[in-house]
Amino acid sequence: MNSAAGTMADQNCHQDMNLNGWMDQLKRIEEKTERLVLLSQLGQILNSTLDHQEVRRRAMEAATRLMKAEAGSLLLIDEERKHLCFEVALGDNEEKIKKITLNLGEGIAGWVAQKGDPLIINAPEQDLRFFKGVDDQTEFKTRNIICVPVKVKEKTIGVLEAINKKEGQDFDDEDRSLFISLADQVAIALDNARLYQELEEMFFQTAESLANAIEKRDPYTGGHTHRVTTYSLATARRLGLKPMEVKWLQISSVLHDIGKIGIDDQILKKPEQLDPEEFNQIKQHANMGAEIIDHIKQLRNIIPGIKYHHEQIDGTGYPEGLRGENIPIIAKIVSVTDTFDAMTTDRPYRRALSKEMAIKELRRCAGTQFDHEVVEAFIQAFEGGEI
Amino acid sequence: MNSAAGTMADQNCHQDMNLNGWMDQLKRIEEKTERLVLLSQLGQILNSTLDHQEVRRRAMEAATRLMKAEAGSLLLIDEERKHLCFEVALGDNEEKIKKITLNLGEGIAGWVAQKGDPLIINAPEQDLRFFKGVDDQTEFKTRNIICVPVKVKEKTIGVLEAINKKEGQDFDDEDRSLFISLADQVAIALDNARLYQELEEMFFQTAESLANAIEKRDPYTGGHTHRVTTYSLATARRLGLKPMEVKWLQISSVLHDIGKIGIDDQILKKPEQLDPEEFNQIKQHANMGAEIIDHIKQLRNIIPGIKYHHEQIDGTGYPEGLRGENIPIIAKIVSVTDTFDAMTTDRPYRRALSKEMAIKELRRCAGTQFDHEVVEAFIQAFEGGEI
Repeated sequence: MNSAAGTMADQNCHQDMNLNGWMDQLKRIEEKTERLVLLSQLGQILNSTLDHQEVRRRAMEAATRLMKAEAGSLLLIDEERKHLCFEVALGDNEEKIKKITLNLGEGIAGWVAQKGDPLIINAPEQDLRFFKGVDDQTEFKTRNIICVPVKVKEKTIGVLEAINKKEGQDFDDEDRSLFISLADQVAIALDNARLYQELEEMFFQTAESLANAIEKRDPYTGGHTHRVTTYSLATARRLGLKPMEVKWLQISSVLHDIGKIGIDDQILKKPEQLDPEEFNQIKQHANMGAEIIDHIKQLRNIIPGIKYHHEQIDGTGYPEGLRGENIPIIAKIVSVTDTFDAMTTDRPYRRALSKEMAIKELRRCAGTQFDHEVVEAFIQAFEGGEI
Repeated sequence: MNSAAGTMADQNCHQDMNLNGWMDQLKRIEEKTERLVLLSQLGQILNSTLDHQEVRRRAMEAATRLMKAEAGSLLLIDEERKHLCFEVALGDNEEKIKKITLNLGEGIAGWVAQKGDPLIINAPEQDLRFFKGVDDQTEFKTRNIICVPVKVKEKTIGVLEAINKKEGQDFDDEDRSLFISLADQVAIALDNARLYQELEEMFFQTAESLANAIEKRDPYTGGHTHRVTTYSLATARRLGLKPMEVKWLQISSVLHDIGKIGIDDQILKKPEQLDPEEFNQIKQHANMGAEIIDHIKQLRNIIPGIKYHHEQIDGTGYPEGLRGENIPIIAKIVSVTDTFDAMTTDRPYRRALSKEMAIKELRRCAGTQFDHEVVEAFIQAFEGGEI
């Protein structure tokens, strides 16, 4: 910098122009600084969720903001079908855009996905790679476009693009370098969310597989666990449960009968009516199931669904004879969905009821055995075709 | 900017000085730009792992680099004990520093953790909050220090600090603002890693709880699953397995006997010697276990440990009679650890062997029933007190 200062001081005749030159440079670099601060903030926003869908939404918003563009979108590669899908897009055209897919190599996004290189096109109508199909379908006029690959460990998993720089300018090298950094942050956030989601799936599938294996000792028709879980989730949606409650309900439904692992084969598989002592043993499965997961800190909230899914509103259920509002909501839901599935599948001692008959039975027992509101929500879900 | 340019042009006599002033400002802002680029890179590095320990290590490195400091450290609040622990620290003093804890409110880090506000101290010996204990114990001379809170959703979970700015300068406002941004990134990365780790623990604990429940139907002493898993991990460390292989081995060990869920109580609990037909049924547990988790994509790699843990090197095992190198390493390990635990616990038909006797038995059967190398690794772990 010192030698540059010397040069400047010598050029007295151009001082004013040089001053303006310096100030322009200063202004540009100040703007760049602001954009770098924004980039850092956007990185934080992207990474502060592990929900894959939410990361995708934030990525598209970040692209639009950082590039000062009219629209932004994220396209992910579908490995099996070898094409690109619009994951999210901003504004009114979202629904139209979501249905559009591009083959690898097709259009600007397809070119970037295939080559793995960034691309700026400031005059798209003159570029052979430009695919007018998207504009035609969305009635959106692309003036200029910047598109960069989203790479996880050198592998391109999608592309991030921003369209139509505001204030009528072209996209330039500075945009390119900032947009590449943003795409790297998007890649990391997407990958973390994917890993989290896969682990969560592994948990659910393992729990369900073990629950199924336990269920098979029972003379029920297979698939009881899975159906109870599906019915419970449909009921929860109608009741407007919070996302965390829905998650607890889901795990609870999967594991509601695990206590049966402690019940003797001879009782579990007995085709005749059980005697009172045998029935007392069967009843133990509620407490035994709760005990099995009792020490798992993260599953504390699912215990009510396992322990109390045989309680009844009028206090005649087991294991504790809880009444009405003392029965946790998760248990009230599993009670309805478990009983509905038991009624609608064959048992050694009776044939299955039709779903319509079982619904009548739920209605009849609402207020004594079952919670009114839960039965109502269940029936709504049934009538809505979700059950 | 235009009015500023006019002012500049009027001050002819000070033109050179003003030019130098502009250039200094430009230089400062260029340096800030470089640091913002670095901040963005450090954010990416921090977020590209979900391993909590690795995030902590990277946080400390990032603090040192971004602040151009001699040392950096991360202290996390231990909620139960109400004190701060040095999680990681750079350089030769790491071991000494790790043993030091600070009470909330004690020292500069303790002050920041308690107040939740950032702090710069450029003359620590004159500051009452400065706690000389750490310097005394590490023989490190603190010249100046910058310390900021690490907050997750407004809650302070720890502090990030950097000590002794290189080139003899003081920490300033720009350092503070950059360091706060870095601490925000650290908070996000730590929180994601924590969520991932908690989900992973939930998976392991649920799998282990269900495996334990299944195990209880068997007349074994309780704790078989847990011991087999511990022994397998100790053996894997001696064999130098890769981290992913260790993870598969761990899950495999937990679930190795889940197929027993399909075996009838009467056979499983029979105290006398089994007849050949009953023994054939018991043998089914290997295949049945594999079938239970067969459809779980993420658990594909653990199947060998479940399916083949009763295979023998000489081809006389079950279910497929695999020989030598055709038996996957995970299965070879579970075979040794499962048999060792079976030998060293009481069975209905015989008393437990001493561990030393069981080791002799493993040695005797190495090369026929067991893999030589695995037995060697197991014995090393045993002699090292890990088993």
